[in-house]
Amino acid sequence: MQANAPTPRTVIVLNGPNLNLLGTREPEIYGAATLADVEALCAERARQHGLRALCYQSNSEGDLVSWIHEAGQLYRQGQLAGVVLNAGAYTHTSVALLDAIKGTGVPVIELHISNVHAREPFRHHSYLSAAARAVMCGFGVAGYGLAIDAIAGW
Amino acid sequence: MQANAPTPRTVIVLNGPNLNLLGTREPEIYGAATLADVEALCAERARQHGLRALCYQSNSEGDLVSWIHEAGQLYRQGQLAGVVLNAGAYTHTSVALLDAIKGTGVPVIELHISNVHAREPFRHHSYLSAAARAVMCGFGVAGYGLAIDAIAGW
Amino acid sequence: MQANAPTPRTVIVLNGPNLNLLGTREPEIYGAATLADVEALCAERARQHGLRALCYQSNSEGDLVSWIHEAGQLYRQGQLAGVVLNAGAYTHTSVALLDAIKGTGVPVIELHISNVHAREPFRHHSYLSAAARAVMCGFGVAGYGLAIDAIAGW
Amino acid sequence: MQANAPTPRTVIVLNGPNLNLLGTREPEIYGAATLADVEALCAERARQHGLRALCYQSNSEGDLVSWIHEAGQLYRQGQLAGVVLNAGAYTHTSVALLDAIKGTGVPVIELHISNVHAREPFRHHSYLSAAARAVMCGFGVAGYGLAIDAIAGW
Amino acid sequence: MQANAPTPRTVIVLNGPNLNLLGTREPEIYGAATLADVEALCAERARQHGLRALCYQSNSEGDLVSWIHEAGQLYRQGQLAGVVLNAGAYTHTSVALLDAIKGTGVPVIELHISNVHAREPFRHHSYLSAAARAVMCGFGVAGYGLAIDAIAGW
Amino acid sequence: MQANAPTPRTVIVLNGPNLNLLGTREPEIYGAATLADVEALCAERARQHGLRALCYQSNSEGDLVSWIHEAGQLYRQGQLAGVVLNAGAYTHTSVALLDAIKGTGVPVIELHISNVHAREPFRHHSYLSAAARAVMCGFGVAGYGLAIDAIAGW
Amino acid sequence: MQANAPTPRTVIVLNGPNLNLLGTREPEIYGAATLADVEALCAERARQHGLRALCYQSNSEGDLVSWIHEAGQLYRQGQLAGVVLNAGAYTHTSVALLDAIKGTGVPVIELHISNVHAREPFRHHSYLSAAARAVMCGFGVAGYGLAIDAIAGW
Amino acid sequence: MQANAPTPRTVIVLNGPNLNLLGTREPEIYGAATLADVEALCAERARQHGLRALCYQSNSEGDLVSWIHEAGQLYRQGQLAGVVLNAGAYTHTSVALLDAIKGTGVPVIELHISNVHAREPFRHHSYLSAAARAVMCGFGVAGYGLAIDAIAGW
Amino acid sequence: MQANAPTPRTVIVLNGPNLNLLGTREPEIYGAATLADVEALCAERARQHGLRALCYQSNSEGDLVSWIHEAGQLYRQGQLAGVVLNAGAYTHTSVALLDAIKGTGVPVIELHISNVHAREPFRHHSYLSAAARAVMCGFGVAGYGLAIDAIAGW
Amino acid sequence: MQANAPTPRTVIVLNGPNLNLLGTREPEIYGAATLADVEALCAERARQHGLRALCYQSNSEGDLVSWIHEAGQLYRQGQLAGVVLNAGAYTHTSVALLDAIKGTGVPVIELHISNVHAREPFRHHSYLSAAARAVMCGFGVAGYGLAIDAIAGW
Amino acid sequence: MQANAPTPRTVIVLNGPNLNLLGTREPEIYGAATLADVEALCAERARQHGLRALCYQSNSEGDLVSWIHEAGQLYRQGQLAGVVLNAGAYTHTSVALLDAIKGTGVPVIELHISNVHAREPFRHHSYLSAAARAVMCGFGVAGYGLAIDAIAGW
Amino acid sequence: MQANAPTPRTVIVLNGPNLNLLGTREPEIYGAATLADVEALCAERARQHGLRALCYQSNSEGDLVSWIHEAGQLYRQGQLAGVVLNAGAYTHTSVALLDAIKGTGVPVIELHISNVHAREPFRHHSYLSAAARAVMCGFGVAGYGLAIDAIAGW
Repeated sequence: MQANAPTPRTVIVLNGPNLNLLGTREPEIYGAATLADVEALCAERARQHGLRALCYQSNSEGDLVSWIHEAGQLYRQGQLAGVVLNAGAYTHTSVALLDAIKGTGVPVIELHISNVHAREPFRHHSYLSAAARAVMCGFGVAGYGLAIDAIAGW
Repeated sequence: MQANAPTPRTVIVLNGPNLNLLGTREPEIYGAATLADVEALCAERARQHGLRALCYQSNSEGDLVSWIHEAGQLYRQGQLAGVVLNAGAYTHTSVALLDAIKGTGVPVIELHISNVHAREPFRHHSYLSAAARAVMCGFGVAGYGLAIDAIAGW
Repeated sequence: MQANAPTPRTVIVLNGPNLNLLGTREPEIYGAATLADVEALCAERARQHGLRALCYQSNSEGDLVSWIHEAGQLYRQGQLAGVVLNAGAYTHTSVALLDAIKGTGVPVIELHISNVHAREPFRHHSYLSAAARAVMCGFGVAGYGLAIDAIAGW
Repeated sequence: MQANAPTPRTVIVLNGPNLNLLGTREPEIYGAATLADVEALCAERARQHGLRALCYQSNSEGDLVSWIHEAGQLYRQGQLAGVVLNAGAYTHTSVALLDAIKGTGVPVIELHISNVHAREPFRHHSYLSAAARAVMCGFGVAGYGLAIDAIAGW
Repeated sequence: MQANAPTPRTVIVLNGPNLNLLGTREPEIYGAATLADVEALCAERARQHGLRALCYQSNSEGDLVSWIHEAGQLYRQGQLAGVVLNAGAYTHTSVALLDAIKGTGVPVIELHISNVHAREPFRHHSYLSAAARAVMCGFGVAGYGLAIDAIAGW
Repeated sequence: MQANAPTPRTVIVLNGPNLNLLGTREPEIYGAATLADVEALCAERARQHGLRALCYQSNSEGDLVSWIHEAGQLYRQGQLAGVVLNAGAYTHTSVALLDAIKGTGVPVIELHISNVHAREPFRHHSYLSAAARAVMCGFGVAGYGLAIDAIAGW
Repeated sequence: MQANAPTPRTVIVLNGPNLNLLGTREPEIYGAATLADVEALCAERARQHGLRALCYQSNSEGDLVSWIHEAGQLYRQGQLAGVVLNAGAYTHTSVALLDAIKGTGVPVIELHISNVHAREPFRHHSYLSAAARAVMCGFGVAGYGLAIDAIAGW
Repeated sequence: MQANAPTPRTVIVLNGPNLNLLGTREPEIYGAATLADVEALCAERARQHGLRALCYQSNSEGDLVSWIHEAGQLYRQGQLAGVVLNAGAYTHTSVALLDAIKGTGVPVIELHISNVHAREPFRHHSYLSAAARAVMCGFGVAGYGLAIDAIAGW
Repeated sequence: MQANAPTPRTVIVLNGPNLNLLGTREPEIYGAATLADVEALCAERARQHGLRALCYQSNSEGDLVSWIHEAGQLYRQGQLAGVVLNAGAYTHTSVALLDAIKGTGVPVIELHISNVHAREPFRHHSYLSAAARAVMCGFGVAGYGLAIDAIAGW
Repeated sequence: MQANAPTPRTVIVLNGPNLNLLGTREPEIYGAATLADVEALCAERARQHGLRALCYQSNSEGDLVSWIHEAGQLYRQGQLAGVVLNAGAYTHTSVALLDAIKGTGVPVIELHISNVHAREPFRHHSYLSAAARAVMCGFGVAGYGLAIDAIAGW
Repeated sequence: MQANAPTPRTVIVLNGPNLNLLGTREPEIYGAATLADVEALCAERARQHGLRALCYQSNSEGDLVSWIHEAGQLYRQGQLAGVVLNAGAYTHTSVALLDAIKGTGVPVIELHISNVHAREPFRHHSYLSAAARAVMCGFGVAGYGLAIDAIAGW
Repeated sequence: MQANAPTPRTVIVLNGPNLNLLGTREPEIYGAATLADVEALCAERARQHGLRALCYQSNSEGDLVSWIHEAGQLYRQGQLAGVVLNAGAYTHTSVALLDAIKGTGVPVIELHISNVHAREPFRHHSYLSAAARAVMCGFGVAGYGLAIDAIAGW
């Protein structure tokens, strides 16, 4: 990047618990792509839209909450394009993540690789959906690209 | 289209009850685009991917079931790329549509313009999701375009 | 009606599934009046208030949705006095009718001939009541007249 | 009233807890009319039908039960035309009122000024409806007049 | 009673809402005996056991609570043999009566004339049973006598 | 049939949504017979019992309601032997069909090709069973024949 | 008994599972009396009323069902005064016993030694109560005597 | 049967608790035929299909489990045509019977004389249906014959 | 108070059913202080903040409703500092009290002496909390003082 | 055993309904060992710990209850080491077994061969667990040995 | 603090997830005070009572659990006055915090800034309340001061 | 260990939140052994079977998830004998742990020291059991040894 070029707006891509297992974890459900593949896909797709992608993963609920706070700071500075959030299992159990989204007001696309509605009943409820701007599931890892496309179109 | 060109594969776009009201119906929820706008968007986006879009709308559950059957015939002939289904209120009440999807095996993207999870509780349950390949909501009418992008990528 | 007289405002009276059986269907619950009797009663009562009554009946959920849309067109033109809706069994199962009422904003009186609260539990819940302006049940076919009186008084 | 004129039949109008606040209580829900206005409306409408209106209000569940008993005595003497019962909050909690209605057999119209189905879920269930002859809600204070019209037509 | 005879221990018999209708209220359920008959039966049966019966009836929940308090005072003075409590509809809705029984510790027999378990589901739950020493229903008014027999045998 | 032969009594066989897919729809559940096969089977079996079979199929709830009304007319004329009703998905969602059966009083055998109790939970509840005279499931298409045998034996 | 004396009418006393443990089983709940004590109490109390007591106990649901059938035979012969049934745990789980009572029509007093309503929630529901004529609990073993008194008074 | 004739395949007909009361038990529900009549009907119908009927009845859950085991032995020897199981009340409460059917794999037709879906709610759920091959109810005792017809057609 | 001193603003302290038993009622839960002690504490604490305390207690739901109305009159006159409401058992059952609070708009602190969340499940739900400004429990009688401190700080 | 050797303490191993099918019943769930194998394993393992194993199996709930009573007698005599109880299906339906365990106070290890939590939901609830000292499932038949090890270590 | 002064007893103030956003997070709900303001308030109020305040905040459930353990160590040393715990979203989801409170036995005041009962239903249930000594909500940040007052008064 | 000896296979023992309190936490439930005692027991028992025990404890859900991932790596290398997982409170709330077990496929024994089924209802449900190979509870700390015995026998 050249010295004087302005910093592009940022897309934050958050992956939650067990998504570091991508590629080895139940590939019949989640596919063969690894987390590194996903993050590369996001970086490239964001670049195509003139955006910068920041990608994080953690197994800790508290880390995800804190990263939403970080997104909130960018948001107040006008530097956030949006958040792609695959909260994994915390989707179904975390009121803290819900509060983080509501408390910062950041625009979030909730994403699931598999079609969670075709799985166990406890995966049908999401604490996050009500605070997310949009929700998508079942598109495989290609969904990350579609989500960034959508954010670029906002 | 030239005389000898093969027929392109088809995307079927189904809109259910009340979606003929688009543009006048609760615009703070559904936006200002009309059904004609949506169908034009779909036709153009499909064309960009070398696909043909067939768009139908009805307030009748039976009509939607029959159109899924029609999609099933194309599917058995290898001519169906996929179905984009915004079943509106029948999403929440129609086992018949579920059976049509399962009975034909057609690949369906369930789509909602608004984020149904941020609305009344009875809109949080969908009979269709378990049989759909993917589900998306909250992307506004832009979601139709993303869905056709996804189908083109299958 | 004289040539130059302005068209009176309209009351739309919608009767749903099985109400064409009135007079033969479980008369201990619904009474001996036929659907024709009810529609005559409505026409006469509307006339007394200087209104015009349009009466429809169908066993199809989609037809009822479409007639609510028709009412919506009159409503936007300032020609609708109100809708009397006896949706029969669809009261308890139709989200599509609810969406039609909300989507058009037409003022609806939900009406049941019998006291639905004294019958099977699944008749105690109505998808429509939350969007209706008023609800009445148990007045027999006389309820249609009272509903038109109420509309005339709005 | 002249000396020899027979006593007219009676309509008893019962208003329950908090209805003494009418006119000041949440006027966006209940309107600007006071309890005195309502009782005057009832007296006048009854008079038009050749009936006598007795109007009571109490915040006590026991008082309402006892007034139903009083209505029962008139009923056994053939002097009761009917009861208009706006039990307010006791609608949703009082089995004792239900038992009073069933125990006396008096014909009751259950009335609510607002459309209770468009409010909190606990207002959707009424212990009284199953024993009432008819139920109405959402007609504002005009509902009292319609109820007396209905009773006069029995 | 002679001047010097000691005051006999007391049985308090409490009847709740609508029990003043006994004899006229749904006689196929409650029988033909009146409240006066029941109270006479209790007085005589108590006398046979050398006890004194105090009988009260009210349609007010608060009165019943206060009479349990009165029983509590006798209990602390060693002058209470027991309480026969037919709380009528308050059986199913009154936490206040439960608290009165627990707060005073008085020994109560909960009694119902009819077999409440053969009636509506909401009559199957009693707030009082957990704090009562014993419960009986379905014995008709003869149950009052059996209850006093039981108290005399404690 | 000879000119003067009396019209035989009628069995009406109604098939609901998606049953036009028979033979191609999930054959591991529904078998290989087509709807035409089923209707031929019914016609032949009815003929063996001296009955006439009328067979209809529709994906529309309203059509099924109307055909029950048609059966009701035959029934009042003493020309109906019975109805075999495979309502498909409407079994689980249609109060309107229930009302049609109750409103006409026609004797109905509710039939399902597969054992619905071994499938998803929402298929375990039928709105129709309470109004049907008999219910059968899991006999495959042979069940249609058994149902007509039963009707012939009434 | 003398040769010519007529057989007295019979009270059948049935005790279900674990009641053979009486006296050793949780005496703080059930008291110190043994099953033999209870049966002696019943025999003596019946004798005082000119009745004969037949007492049975079993841990088997089937045995209790069969004894109800035996009571049914006496009942059809006019020789049964009534049944005292302490079904123990089967109270809460046995539809077969309910069917036996309904199928024979015998008059039953359901009895529990302890106050079941003050114990675990699953003891609050009885399949039998709806078919019993009367229900009593919490009177200790003295309840058996009161139950026979009641039967003698029928 | 001649000396050298092979043993015919067997239909086992099991009747559960209270079915020994057939003919006297609630005849408005169960009809006038006795258990002996039913078993004779089964024997004759089986004979017409070249099968042998073994009929058992018990009020004990354990007996029914054991007879299913006996059927399982015939099944493994290729000598079982099928089982007709009217488990009566155990239908609704017995996981042990479910396990017996699943554990042996025997093909079972679950049968009820009355239409259980038109009776109390607790009769609407069957533990057995999920493991049965087919289910039928409401055909009266004629259902036994239809069930054997179906087994003969397998 | 001197002749010309202005009337201080008022704190209304309402105690509901059974709170007149304080000091004798289950002291391990409620402590040894009597209702008189509590009211003296409130008067003194209010005085320290320059407020006037009005203390009422009743076992009647209707009385509490009426006192909230009285508070509403002071509130409209700008003379009410706030209400401390220990509604006792009516907390869990009274929609009428909820309506009184909402109908008058008075600022209420809901107070419980014991920690209701550590007691029976039916004490965990309060109809009043949603309309109260603040809620506190488990502070013993000291809670009354804290509540008045909080009101003084508004 | 030599003449003078003291009787070793006893472990009672109870197997419930359908466990006599072990080895043939759903071997993918329950494994290939037969009941005889299991009982031999238990006898040998007990012997290694200086204990005596008594092994029973029945399909009857009543038999299991009675054997718990038998264990209770040994327990009161100080001769019981513990009970290993695989109650099979009665685990989920038998309050009578629960009462037997509580009534005798015997120390019980509840055992299941398969992991019941990975099977149907109705197998997730056990009436027995609350009264058992310990619970184990999913260890196959090896679990019986571990349970006896645990008992030996008490 | 002087060299020889004894260490004052400690109040531990724990704030959970998202409370670091105070002041910017939904100020219409939580007010304008920041976390630093709250901690300063607590330090000062504790000092007034001769106590020391230790204030921690974390978005991690595990950190809060560990700090409760730290409080437990002070408690066993007699140096803990009490804990003020605003667990934020973990209030509604954390059994681990409940176990920490129960496992250490520390006296806790559960505090919420807003009135959680006036918000979403999932905020109405707290896992912590049953183990807390007292609970308060809706007092804004002033509640922290009241809580420390209460602790000082223990 | 000698230089050339191969590394023994590993048993991983994971203890979750609050288990570091063992020995001081509610010893009437959990016993007197400390976490160090438990880990020593595990190390020794593993050694007896020729296995190596790795023991971890954390109060953080994320740590437990990550250790399951670590176990997954050993598992893919054939070096894992099994996992003993006492997830403490996360048993009841953590979908993330469930996903970790399913995502890695490691064989897990779920263990609880106390009999969780005899405690609060929310401890009766485990998210983990369905993915565990076996489950045990109520064996005290001795259960850890039994679990390692079982793993050694796999």
